[in-house]
Amino acid sequence: MPETIGFLGLGKMGLPMASRLLDAGFELRVYNRSADKARPLADRGVAVMKSPAEVSTRGGIVISVVSDDPALESLAGDDLAEALGPGGLHISMSTVSPAISRKLAAHHSRFGAAFLAAPVFGRPEAAGAGKLFICASGAVAAKQRAQPAFKALGQRVFDFGEDPGAANVVKLGGNFLIIAAVQAMAEASALAEKNGVPRAALLDMLTQTLFACPIYQSYSRRVIDADFEKAGFRASLALKDVELAVQTAADSGVPMPTLSLLREQYLAAMAKGRESMDATVIALEAAEAAGLKWGS
Amino acid sequence: MPETIGFLGLGKMGLPMASRLLDAGFELRVYNRSADKARPLADRGVAVMKSPAEVSTRGGIVISVVSDDPALESLAGDDLAEALGPGGLHISMSTVSPAISRKLAAHHSRFGAAFLAAPVFGRPEAAGAGKLFICASGAVAAKQRAQPAFKALGQRVFDFGEDPGAANVVKLGGNFLIIAAVQAMAEASALAEKNGVPRAALLDMLTQTLFACPIYQSYSRRVIDADFEKAGFRASLALKDVELAVQTAADSGVPMPTLSLLREQYLAAMAKGRESMDATVIALEAAEAAGLKWGS
Repeated sequence: MPETIGFLGLGKMGLPMASRLLDAGFELRVYNRSADKARPLADRGVAVMKSPAEVSTRGGIVISVVSDDPALESLAGDDLAEALGPGGLHISMSTVSPAISRKLAAHHSRFGAAFLAAPVFGRPEAAGAGKLFICASGAVAAKQRAQPAFKALGQRVFDFGEDPGAANVVKLGGNFLIIAAVQAMAEASALAEKNGVPRAALLDMLTQTLFACPIYQSYSRRVIDADFEKAGFRASLALKDVELAVQTAADSGVPMPTLSLLREQYLAAMAKGRESMDATVIALEAAEAAGLKWGS
Repeated sequence: MPETIGFLGLGKMGLPMASRLLDAGFELRVYNRSADKARPLADRGVAVMKSPAEVSTRGGIVISVVSDDPALESLAGDDLAEALGPGGLHISMSTVSPAISRKLAAHHSRFGAAFLAAPVFGRPEAAGAGKLFICASGAVAAKQRAQPAFKALGQRVFDFGEDPGAANVVKLGGNFLIIAAVQAMAEASALAEKNGVPRAALLDMLTQTLFACPIYQSYSRRVIDADFEKAGFRASLALKDVELAVQTAADSGVPMPTLSLLREQYLAAMAKGRESMDATVIALEAAEAAGLKWGS
């Protein structure tokens, strides 16, 4: 019989993840800041609670999936850690800073509860299908206890050791590689087009050969189709991830010139009111810089 | 019966390509600036000639594989185009500028000869095994005539239309994407290591999942092993490719901030006498910038 899980945060990723846990036989108690997001789960008989602390049971498991450090911090305050108490486990699956994971791990331990960082790679569709890649770090016993939930949510779990911040660093590094790839594809596309080669010809060739992998194949489609309006992943959230990486790099003494450049590209996108467009919209910035008109 | 092919340039790529043509049944007449490089072919009975013009027969096919624009221009002067004459075909498989391809195409046509740009993706091992990816552009009939040679050398041919410069733009764009990926992997690796995560843990995870493709998998090994000494592809040649892309971008009005950054990284590598190390040595620059010591 699977454990009951408290689930915090029913946004673009959280909702399909919670649904997936439900499909896998877990009982859930859920909370979201705006309660209407919980409707699809309530319709399936899930208990919708009025506060983060109410979703947790003493010694139980809570999973949180929220958009940034402040949201996580406001959920995971004294009440939650205290409600979990001795033997409790908080699995934090958001993309947040390593610093906040380390801080919250220390905070939870004061109440006898464990804290795992377990950010994920994958779009909402992958979340709903249990096909995420999960990066986990924290205490060994806590990772062991999280396995049934991880198994329901992910196709694979990668273990980055006991430092609760480690998995967050990996997630920020991975997101950085993704948007660096988008920026490079956009610059190469602009070069091609100003020299008479359609970007589709360039990118189709490369993504069938040297770069035949999920990131290049899916994001090159966005670039080719100039499909930036409907956000799979919002540009404002990508900028947030970039800022977290910039801060982590500064804190740990790591010059990252490509990362700095990506930050400028997102700031330029924000300056044009493109925060709710897809994270790949930096490709449009690169094209416009070259005097090209892509899309509508 | 395959045509006799004149082959110019027996360097790291040219020699295995010429050998492969020989394996496939073509007769060759070869030329290389330093004749000793032709020894392995001479031992197989290949005619080694004393000048570029001597390798070509009237109306025949010549393939050139040289390291840069000046080398190509010095080979492909009046003598060669004149020796090829009406019905002749020069297949230029070097990584050179689109500008020189356009110029040489015009030059060859004055003697009634055709000129194809057909740069390739793949390392010397792929060349020897006939597994290159070939990007071709130029006149339709010339591309048709080149098919038997392309078939022997490549696993796949991509056609970029009739502008002889187009395939070179694609090759420069592809090489740019490759080194941009190396730089991004290096920055992310430095971030990970300064935060306690071994770069092998980060890169192994990413190259088994989101970035499971040849470029990330092979170049991440170089980064993980700090294996920069033995050049598969020399850093000085990578800088040459970057400079060609920078020039092409300038000529066509394309701001490419990531490309500019890569140029700085290669200049830093050159400043330390690293020109004969592998092109991935920019990863070492990124690590050193963060105060990390990788490799020997």
